[in-house]
Amino acid sequence: MTDVEHPGATPPKVREISSRGHALLKDLRRLATDPGAYRKLGRVWLEGDHLAKALAARGGRPSLAVVGASAWLQPRWRALALAAPEVVVLDDALLGEVSSLETAGPFGLLMDLPEQAAPPRAGVSALVLDRLQDPGNVGTLLRSAAALGVPQVIALKGCAALWSPKVLRSAMGAHFALHLVEGVEADALDALGLPLLATSSHGAQALHTTHLPWPCAWVLGHEGQGVDAGLLARCALTLTIPQPGGEESLNVAAAGAICLYESARQRLMP
Amino acid sequence: MTDVEHPGATPPKVREISSRGHALLKDLRRLATDPGAYRKLGRVWLEGDHLAKALAARGGRPSLAVVGASAWLQPRWRALALAAPEVVVLDDALLGEVSSLETAGPFGLLMDLPEQAAPPRAGVSALVLDRLQDPGNVGTLLRSAAALGVPQVIALKGCAALWSPKVLRSAMGAHFALHLVEGVEADALDALGLPLLATSSHGAQALHTTHLPWPCAWVLGHEGQGVDAGLLARCALTLTIPQPGGEESLNVAAAGAICLYESARQRLMP
Repeated sequence: MTDVEHPGATPPKVREISSRGHALLKDLRRLATDPGAYRKLGRVWLEGDHLAKALAARGGRPSLAVVGASAWLQPRWRALALAAPEVVVLDDALLGEVSSLETAGPFGLLMDLPEQAAPPRAGVSALVLDRLQDPGNVGTLLRSAAALGVPQVIALKGCAALWSPKVLRSAMGAHFALHLVEGVEADALDALGLPLLATSSHGAQALHTTHLPWPCAWVLGHEGQGVDAGLLARCALTLTIPQPGGEESLNVAAAGAICLYESARQRLMP
Repeated sequence: MTDVEHPGATPPKVREISSRGHALLKDLRRLATDPGAYRKLGRVWLEGDHLAKALAARGGRPSLAVVGASAWLQPRWRALALAAPEVVVLDDALLGEVSSLETAGPFGLLMDLPEQAAPPRAGVSALVLDRLQDPGNVGTLLRSAAALGVPQVIALKGCAALWSPKVLRSAMGAHFALHLVEGVEADALDALGLPLLATSSHGAQALHTTHLPWPCAWVLGHEGQGVDAGLLARCALTLTIPQPGGEESLNVAAAGAICLYESARQRLMP
């Protein structure tokens, strides 16, 4: 069967694991439950078929597929698993223990963590995340950056871990379309050589009436405190999102979507 | 002390509850853990001081304040509690049991659920939520509607419960600035007398180059499936959000923020 699915290629190595104490399972449990474990282990755990397909669509390569014993009997999951160079078939009961989901799926991939020493890319438009705490917000912002044409995301020190299971789930595969940098100090932004833009309720100019530079780096800040004052002072523009509804505030991922959309709109308009 | 804080007004009735089996505690536990319990009980449980202040800022009136015994000794919390017509001082240990938060705060309000038979308001711009499942998305969208000048939100049958603790937390007080309608069928939208607008990846026109009608009703759909096909067919405009980044998709709350911003931008531009 494998030589049909991999014509001419080396068929993947397939092994079964049914022992809870296996070293691989220990690693997977850590990756599923500890948001920062990927940094220590150098590997990322991608649960479910959506992330697998998103990775493949961007030409990414997993190191290992993990599939439940029941799913392994189904052609759909078997084909997905056999696209990896190595397959582990796991007791269904054990699979639930390595999931970060309420309802565990029957499938996941391990991939090597992309190079973390990669510095910010100079001159490439970026989204800068200053101490964002909520993984759902971070994931949503990664998705917006990928869709709205911002190819680079830089998470400053203190930001939620970019490759954690919750951020991965919320970003729906956007990770694989972006150049991601994390754990850097704000000083590293100088190397971008780009104007920094931020929103602020005390912003000097309104977003919708200001000509926005491109390329640029949009800075978004902590859910409660906003952008750090020192960083805000370094921004070339601080902009106010018009709020005809009054003095309400926007969720940071909603504000980010609006800023990246306005940036895109101005580029696309003749 | 109370006659200083309530000059000329009837001082609130204050009572202590230290029994886990008290009927009020049973209700609060239900409200904190069951997202739809407010419909049966006709009351909403607002945890924390932020929601209390947001309610007061909009002139809303709670029916009861619940404050932990330790917090009751502190002037800040005492003053907040005494703004309600009735105060319950609760054993600190019991307070944690009526919280939906990981770390319980020392304070909450009960308010009567606003009139649920209220129909959609004809001619008033609205955000229509079609079967959205994630409370964080729903709360974020309520916040965006309040900030960007859409005064009415209509949740169709099958949408996450608008007054659940998670939606309340995520909306940060936007509930009190909006006319909220929930549990209605799509046919009820006819009574609005407004053009329906939706986004669709197969949309006929691009959002950023289309003149948008105002007032209008923006329709946002289920996280995975989008807007129901029958409802989409009734929309006057189906619009595509430009995605210079490629074929990625946007989180529904990010897409909603962009649509409401573009609507506001066009109204505000000369």
